[in-house]
Amino acid sequence: MTTLRLWTDAEVDGDPSVKAVFDDIRQSRKSDFVNNFWRALANQPDTLERIWAGLKAVMVQPSALDPLVKELIYIAVSTANGCSYCVHSHTAGAKAKGMTEAQHADLLAVIGMAAQTNALANALQLPVDPQFLVTR
Amino acid sequence: MTTLRLWTDAEVDGDPSVKAVFDDIRQSRKSDFVNNFWRALANQPDTLERIWAGLKAVMVQPSALDPLVKELIYIAVSTANGCSYCVHSHTAGAKAKGMTEAQHADLLAVIGMAAQTNALANALQLPVDPQFLVTR
Amino acid sequence: MTTLRLWTDAEVDGDPSVKAVFDDIRQSRKSDFVNNFWRALANQPDTLERIWAGLKAVMVQPSALDPLVKELIYIAVSTANGCSYCVHSHTAGAKAKGMTEAQHADLLAVIGMAAQTNALANALQLPVDPQFLVTR
Amino acid sequence: MTTLRLWTDAEVDGDPSVKAVFDDIRQSRKSDFVNNFWRALANQPDTLERIWAGLKAVMVQPSALDPLVKELIYIAVSTANGCSYCVHSHTAGAKAKGMTEAQHADLLAVIGMAAQTNALANALQLPVDPQFLVTR
Amino acid sequence: MTTLRLWTDAEVDGDPSVKAVFDDIRQSRKSDFVNNFWRALANQPDTLERIWAGLKAVMVQPSALDPLVKELIYIAVSTANGCSYCVHSHTAGAKAKGMTEAQHADLLAVIGMAAQTNALANALQLPVDPQFLVTR
Amino acid sequence: MTTLRLWTDAEVDGDPSVKAVFDDIRQSRKSDFVNNFWRALANQPDTLERIWAGLKAVMVQPSALDPLVKELIYIAVSTANGCSYCVHSHTAGAKAKGMTEAQHADLLAVIGMAAQTNALANALQLPVDPQFLVTR
Repeated sequence: MTTLRLWTDAEVDGDPSVKAVFDDIRQSRKSDFVNNFWRALANQPDTLERIWAGLKAVMVQPSALDPLVKELIYIAVSTANGCSYCVHSHTAGAKAKGMTEAQHADLLAVIGMAAQTNALANALQLPVDPQFLVTR
Repeated sequence: MTTLRLWTDAEVDGDPSVKAVFDDIRQSRKSDFVNNFWRALANQPDTLERIWAGLKAVMVQPSALDPLVKELIYIAVSTANGCSYCVHSHTAGAKAKGMTEAQHADLLAVIGMAAQTNALANALQLPVDPQFLVTR
Repeated sequence: MTTLRLWTDAEVDGDPSVKAVFDDIRQSRKSDFVNNFWRALANQPDTLERIWAGLKAVMVQPSALDPLVKELIYIAVSTANGCSYCVHSHTAGAKAKGMTEAQHADLLAVIGMAAQTNALANALQLPVDPQFLVTR
Repeated sequence: MTTLRLWTDAEVDGDPSVKAVFDDIRQSRKSDFVNNFWRALANQPDTLERIWAGLKAVMVQPSALDPLVKELIYIAVSTANGCSYCVHSHTAGAKAKGMTEAQHADLLAVIGMAAQTNALANALQLPVDPQFLVTR
Repeated sequence: MTTLRLWTDAEVDGDPSVKAVFDDIRQSRKSDFVNNFWRALANQPDTLERIWAGLKAVMVQPSALDPLVKELIYIAVSTANGCSYCVHSHTAGAKAKGMTEAQHADLLAVIGMAAQTNALANALQLPVDPQFLVTR
Repeated sequence: MTTLRLWTDAEVDGDPSVKAVFDDIRQSRKSDFVNNFWRALANQPDTLERIWAGLKAVMVQPSALDPLVKELIYIAVSTANGCSYCVHSHTAGAKAKGMTEAQHADLLAVIGMAAQTNALANALQLPVDPQFLVTR
């Protein structure tokens, strides 16, 4: 199914550098479950380490946006990019972080509306209003 | 530039059904400024009215998500869809709703990280973990 | 599989506002079959109602373009957006509206050719010819 | 601006294989105007010839779909792919083939609606209804 | 599953124009295996012939880029376009042409990084540096 | 134009953490020129540092793929994602790394062909051939 083999826990345990990343994923997420994304990247330890470090910096460490809000943004991007795996994993992530049904409804409505007006604006080839061009 | 002519205020004032929508946009946003998107849709009064009604329902009326959070999601979708006009207009909208520089930085970091892992997941063609398939 | 539970007919019958939309879908389409898209949106009655009203206005009500032509355009957009569900549902819709095999062949040929020249134009970063910038 | 230099008429006239394609474009379209897309591809005579032959087969030669309908489909794909040049050139092409303002309005409404339901279906990760899986 | 029926070898053998293309595919690839893509296009002999001729010209005939490099580029485009079938078929193709695990790792890393900086550049709406606008 | 202000050299020199990244960019590329992408990210030092470290690891450090091949892949992804800025900057990068006109022609031909067959495969909703599902 995947273009790269998924590593089992036994294989992970046999490779110290991969195991170190998996341990950090488990500790950061306070869960033993490590999903297929990381089991595929385990074939490429350098990429595994770099991508996890980036995801941890952006999504796990406290920052200006609420963790749930960041998951909602992640779902929005994943939807627009047509990434089935990512929509599933980050919708599960958002539910785990407390997304209510009403918030989920709102998220879908905004994603759909944005896609619609994006298409209209692209079809219209609108010039950007000067009022929008002020940067800070 | 646009594929449809942009209506001036004088033209809008001369068409009661278009003027009604523009009046509602101005009142809802508490601002006299009406951007090019609506001036192009004015050529198509039915679409103008339907799209504005949808945008008002989703983005203006109070709902489960904070107005600023909805703008951030809108920017994320617009970026993924490569809609230059929409990125400009909704980034301006988010700033008007109070987006701080730190929140903007966070938003960009999440959008970039999501695009990266979306691409990796699409290239890997991962099977969705059963744990992600629980629906409520 | 879905990120929202699909409503059964029994559940739909138990919720008057959802049932009203489903009744209208069945009547407009002259068919008892209501597909999964609406059964998922049933979790979010406001969105269900708004999206159906939009789809009815655009796709069901008589307008300047032939209903079959509108389905062909829908398939083209769905293909470009990589929406598997939508390609399936609207290809079925086009067949139900009388799309011949020769028309289907033509549609695919145009979609493929457009995708190819889109990619070339994006890779070339062509300036738009002044002759194309005349708007009416 | 472009990543490849645009050929002038003088340069085209100096290269028999490029000139042959330009002559065929002018004859097929019954117009002296040859747009930038072909002037950039002129740097790559093999690609120029192959792409023009494909476009002529799909878009110029009579087929199961009306020439205007094929232009509308082309615009829809170009919009979804965010190809600014292509939206401009094919909207001009559709106008030249007789697209009315009402048809243009309809086209935009369908493109926008499709983009919206594509996004919703992608966010919902819907299973395809068995009824849609019948092939002929 | 497909929107067009897949042709069996027996059906192919019964249609001389389709058989001629299948024979050429088998000969060019030095393999009896013909994948589903061509079995679906067999319903549309003109498109089948045109697309195969194009693919053969671009991907099979010797050219300035190495055959493996062309497969890597094909995977990159297919990933960005979210084409599951194409990612699978061209990853298999690249392996058959000798792609090593280390090259595959590199390919994924580049695709992911490009997607990330593409998203950032789109969100930033950067003006192109004059230094990048020199064409040859 | 950008949604974030571009930093001048004087501003960069006044911020040690930003200056450290710019110095490393200049040294790694053996050039004084630092393009707008980094001047916008300078507003967000953490993101600037993380993205540059990733790009350096993937694109600058020696790896299994040739530096020019990686640039070609980068252009392919950027084209598919419709990132105008990225197409310009990485086409310039590929030329600087020695891309010949014939290689550029080949690259465009592959990108266009891939986009075309991606669209056809998405419109056909093909099942993946079992032969493509073997992973190593």
